[in-house]
Amino acid sequence: MRPLKPHHFGQKKASTIWGGRFAEGPSQLMQEINASISFDKTLYRQDIAGSIAHAKMLADQNILTANDRDQIISGLQQIEKDIAAGTFIFSDQLEDIHMNIETRLVELIGDPAKRLHTARSRNDQVATDLRLWLREAIADIDGMLAGLQAALLDQAEAHTESVMPGYTHLQTAQPITFGFHLMAYVQMFGRDRSRFADCSKRMNESPLGAAALAGTSHPIDRHKTAALLDFEQPMANAMDAVSARDFAVEFMSAASICSTHLSRLAEEIVIWSTDRFAFISLSDAYTTGSSIMPQKRNPDAAELIRAKPGRIIGDMVALLTVLKGLPLAYGKDMQEDKEPVFDAEKSLCIS
Amino acid sequence: MRPLKPHHFGQKKASTIWGGRFAEGPSQLMQEINASISFDKTLYRQDIAGSIAHAKMLADQNILTANDRDQIISGLQQIEKDIAAGTFIFSDQLEDIHMNIETRLVELIGDPAKRLHTARSRNDQVATDLRLWLREAIADIDGMLAGLQAALLDQAEAHTESVMPGYTHLQTAQPITFGFHLMAYVQMFGRDRSRFADCSKRMNESPLGAAALAGTSHPIDRHKTAALLDFEQPMANAMDAVSARDFAVEFMSAASICSTHLSRLAEEIVIWSTDRFAFISLSDAYTTGSSIMPQKRNPDAAELIRAKPGRIIGDMVALLTVLKGLPLAYGKDMQEDKEPVFDAEKSLCIS
Amino acid sequence: MRPLKPHHFGQKKASTIWGGRFAEGPSQLMQEINASISFDKTLYRQDIAGSIAHAKMLADQNILTANDRDQIISGLQQIEKDIAAGTFIFSDQLEDIHMNIETRLVELIGDPAKRLHTARSRNDQVATDLRLWLREAIADIDGMLAGLQAALLDQAEAHTESVMPGYTHLQTAQPITFGFHLMAYVQMFGRDRSRFADCSKRMNESPLGAAALAGTSHPIDRHKTAALLDFEQPMANAMDAVSARDFAVEFMSAASICSTHLSRLAEEIVIWSTDRFAFISLSDAYTTGSSIMPQKRNPDAAELIRAKPGRIIGDMVALLTVLKGLPLAYGKDMQEDKEPVFDAEKSLCIS
Amino acid sequence: MRPLKPHHFGQKKASTIWGGRFAEGPSQLMQEINASISFDKTLYRQDIAGSIAHAKMLADQNILTANDRDQIISGLQQIEKDIAAGTFIFSDQLEDIHMNIETRLVELIGDPAKRLHTARSRNDQVATDLRLWLREAIADIDGMLAGLQAALLDQAEAHTESVMPGYTHLQTAQPITFGFHLMAYVQMFGRDRSRFADCSKRMNESPLGAAALAGTSHPIDRHKTAALLDFEQPMANAMDAVSARDFAVEFMSAASICSTHLSRLAEEIVIWSTDRFAFISLSDAYTTGSSIMPQKRNPDAAELIRAKPGRIIGDMVALLTVLKGLPLAYGKDMQEDKEPVFDAEKSLCIS
Repeated sequence: MRPLKPHHFGQKKASTIWGGRFAEGPSQLMQEINASISFDKTLYRQDIAGSIAHAKMLADQNILTANDRDQIISGLQQIEKDIAAGTFIFSDQLEDIHMNIETRLVELIGDPAKRLHTARSRNDQVATDLRLWLREAIADIDGMLAGLQAALLDQAEAHTESVMPGYTHLQTAQPITFGFHLMAYVQMFGRDRSRFADCSKRMNESPLGAAALAGTSHPIDRHKTAALLDFEQPMANAMDAVSARDFAVEFMSAASICSTHLSRLAEEIVIWSTDRFAFISLSDAYTTGSSIMPQKRNPDAAELIRAKPGRIIGDMVALLTVLKGLPLAYGKDMQEDKEPVFDAEKSLCIS
Repeated sequence: MRPLKPHHFGQKKASTIWGGRFAEGPSQLMQEINASISFDKTLYRQDIAGSIAHAKMLADQNILTANDRDQIISGLQQIEKDIAAGTFIFSDQLEDIHMNIETRLVELIGDPAKRLHTARSRNDQVATDLRLWLREAIADIDGMLAGLQAALLDQAEAHTESVMPGYTHLQTAQPITFGFHLMAYVQMFGRDRSRFADCSKRMNESPLGAAALAGTSHPIDRHKTAALLDFEQPMANAMDAVSARDFAVEFMSAASICSTHLSRLAEEIVIWSTDRFAFISLSDAYTTGSSIMPQKRNPDAAELIRAKPGRIIGDMVALLTVLKGLPLAYGKDMQEDKEPVFDAEKSLCIS
Repeated sequence: MRPLKPHHFGQKKASTIWGGRFAEGPSQLMQEINASISFDKTLYRQDIAGSIAHAKMLADQNILTANDRDQIISGLQQIEKDIAAGTFIFSDQLEDIHMNIETRLVELIGDPAKRLHTARSRNDQVATDLRLWLREAIADIDGMLAGLQAALLDQAEAHTESVMPGYTHLQTAQPITFGFHLMAYVQMFGRDRSRFADCSKRMNESPLGAAALAGTSHPIDRHKTAALLDFEQPMANAMDAVSARDFAVEFMSAASICSTHLSRLAEEIVIWSTDRFAFISLSDAYTTGSSIMPQKRNPDAAELIRAKPGRIIGDMVALLTVLKGLPLAYGKDMQEDKEPVFDAEKSLCIS
Repeated sequence: MRPLKPHHFGQKKASTIWGGRFAEGPSQLMQEINASISFDKTLYRQDIAGSIAHAKMLADQNILTANDRDQIISGLQQIEKDIAAGTFIFSDQLEDIHMNIETRLVELIGDPAKRLHTARSRNDQVATDLRLWLREAIADIDGMLAGLQAALLDQAEAHTESVMPGYTHLQTAQPITFGFHLMAYVQMFGRDRSRFADCSKRMNESPLGAAALAGTSHPIDRHKTAALLDFEQPMANAMDAVSARDFAVEFMSAASICSTHLSRLAEEIVIWSTDRFAFISLSDAYTTGSSIMPQKRNPDAAELIRAKPGRIIGDMVALLTVLKGLPLAYGKDMQEDKEPVFDAEKSLCIS
């Protein structure tokens, strides 16, 4: 197969990389709201992984030379080290993580860097990055929930004889044991893990190759990049591949439910540790005192966990609102997807 | 095994069924807000199915006589007919669907009716009803989505050659075909079906036998009732069984996402049918005119579909808010679960 | 000034009132989702009041004869009686409350009824109705909140000496009195009343005369209808008059905040009435018992109040989502405004 | 009046400032989630202003000496300069902005710094800071909205003759002018300004003096600090003063509504600038191009504005959820109030 002419960045205007037909560059304010680098730098490892897989496939398909591929991979790995070390300098003018990385790559390896983006668009690139990031986040969350279940199980086993009131309407109903009560939460978190697992499975298909919205005429191999990135298969429709964010909403929905479960346990901890109930006392490690009232032992950690559903539910509402009535295939609105996702993940993990 | 003494309703006060130790009955206002019959009558078929399974199991376990069981089942079937026919008279004073049905059953068959509720509480009863109802609703929704996919597929096949602009940012980007565009939605609704299926599977375990929150000393067989109602297995923890509503939130989350997909298609329909785009024209069957402007052909159906995510997302937020920080095992707050669920299901099906 | 030709309904098709250029009527399904009569009949008194004011103005402006006006008013008053008495038969095929009333009016008084709608559209008609309804609802709510403040004040005065713990983090902090604690809520509800009052004032301008979106060439007097309906003035821009629903969102926002205040008090009532805290005991009038546990005295009313913010917040989210990204001047999406408003108002009043 | 013994910080434990009775300090994780300095440093100017007013009042009341007051003010002004200059080093271990500032003050001026916090708690301190911050934010927002109205007015005046279609249901309805269309938004933003103004007025009362929840026995003058900080009056009830966050929700509600108005205009801009409508063309300053499609002129700025309601509505939902069912007077949950408020304000201003 004859190699198609590789994609070139085109002339880089002083102020912008797509400047071509534009008489003036974007305004100062425009640059400020357009830039997403302040938050999408979170995706750097995934972006680099995606680019490496893309470069390998391009070489396998003779769209890139082996030499180009090797230089690209080497350069990207260097960039990854620099970002991890905190020495990489990000630029707002370069808009986002994708441009920041590719610009630096040009500085590092010169011309070959301009050929990396062949047969790709930032549309399928970012969709891929976000899925990779969430897949990893879900794996971490699953580990945390498993640990939480184990901890609850330990406590439950130690308290199979600890009789306490079982409540309905917070009125004493029937005697139960503390262990039995905690096991309810073990079940809930079990379902949360199951929900996250289904979510991860469902999102595990690759957008790469969809390009802007309708694929590319380059002889790419979508199955190859999918396999390299451990995706189940390439996504079937290119417009869907770049437009879909339901996987992110589903993640935040699982996070909202999980967070709500945590908040129920947190509320009980707050109530049980009042001097009125005095069922439990919390270790100093997770309470705070008061500058003015020395007798205080405040269940701050539990209170924060009780509060977290607020922002996670808010994050989910935010993205659903953005997507409502949004035509295909890509709109700048969709840049608003990442911050809610990152905040939801961080809030849940903190809880 | 010796049969334990069956549960009796106890004295029915003139104004209430749990009157016992109460000097006065509930206030007029209290009765109004406490009663849920106005909306939970929606669950009548599931409530009757649950009671029939419970009665069968009680007889198998020698807690009820075969004669009691047969009279109960026969009476319940009569009640189901009456409700379906619209001849059943509901009473607010009897609070909810469960009490309404059981009271009528006593009228129909006398004493045996009072033994139906043995080894059961309204807590596990309603949790079971809601799961049965949602399982059925999801099956209906799956059928509708499959039909929608088929219809889109038909249109797509008919339009493999119909070239149209592919948009990003609603700016002409690259040429595509109308068929290709519609296939994006076929994929989205495919994932929606997958989400609903996972949800249905995850919720398909039986709360029956959990009683109020901690089971019962009657020698019931939870596996039997689970099997009779096509549940996968009984739920493992009784407090979880009566407290959990994450299955309902998960349903509304899948509905929110699906509704958002529909709203994206709806927005496009509205835009494509403007005289400016003029890509499509809608049949008279799904548009409306204007009393004052005769040239109008308004895409009302599409606009309503575009709007529906609002209420479905609102329904999901409603239930998550109710559950936030709610201690186990049951609180009257949870009565607020049904109306959002019913509204979400109805809104989605209408769309 | 010469009288312009009055507006006629035009031919009523068997299936629809705007049928004119339509070959077929709307589909069965279309009729079902298009019809709003099931919920907008709530607006009947306001719709009639608006129509009466409109008729009076039309007569004053010599667009209607005095005789027409008198017959119209008389007919409308009859219709109002019938609806209030429950004898009015509503029809889905007539879509909404406006059409139902006008159709009946034609039956009652014949030809003059067809001239009522002159210089008016359902767009400005419904916008006016909703404002009138909310103005009245706010007046009722203010009365209820004033009553609540008074009741709290009474309790506070009776408990100026009742020492209790003041809590932060639900940990005993400093001694306070029960009266002092209740006064916090008196302040909160005072701000809620202030918020509702500002909302009512801000929405108190009349859309009438905006017609569909851009006024009418009939020589109407917008100030007259505004004055007759106790509006402050007519709205300045016709497109704004028919498009704006921010007043409804503002109402639901005030309701959400008020409901959240109630939920904080409700949570405290639930906690104080536990046997652990035992600060208060609730009268039988507002608690419920249990069919299975005779010692129970459940704070059901408080729990429901604690739960209500869920649906009111959900209602507000619903309408904001509908309005997001909605072009002017009117879209069928906006039909989704009423049910959230009615539900929010009802939920708040119940609380 | 005899001067009461000034408040001392007490011993500072190595790890915490309230260490007193705690055997061990807070855990690493605890410190991480407890600390709010990463976001509440935004309040530094307000916190310093509040402290200066407090110090002045304490001196006027002979609780502090004039010398103490002067040193405190001088030190605080230095700290403000340092923070503004970016040279101040914040510490997570010192939890929040209040502790960070006070600790630094001790370093700067020694012993007198320990007397600043006399008759004050972080509860009334932070409540005051947030109100001051929002009052200022609202003033800025009002200026921006006034500027927006002016800009729209200019355009409207220039286009009193530019005829265009007026739409309902996005179908051509009646002819209007572009100027008339823009005036609808001038009205909407006018109401938004009115809403913000009412919000600012309602929140303009001072919590200072409420201390932790129930005031202080020190002979403070609440009216004085209120006046120094341009508050209308001190808040009437101390528990309300430290517990209330309805003012923050009201702010975000006004922001949500305003943002929704902006999103409606943004949607229209996106639609009008399609090549199909071609009503307007956007300047290069506010559009972006595409790396792969040179003909593109994407209305990115408008799309982002259309999307912003998502996060602002999400922010409001977050705080309402936190407050739902939250007992008085202060809980750590309330730390979750600031980030949504800051995000909402920033998102609105960007739009």
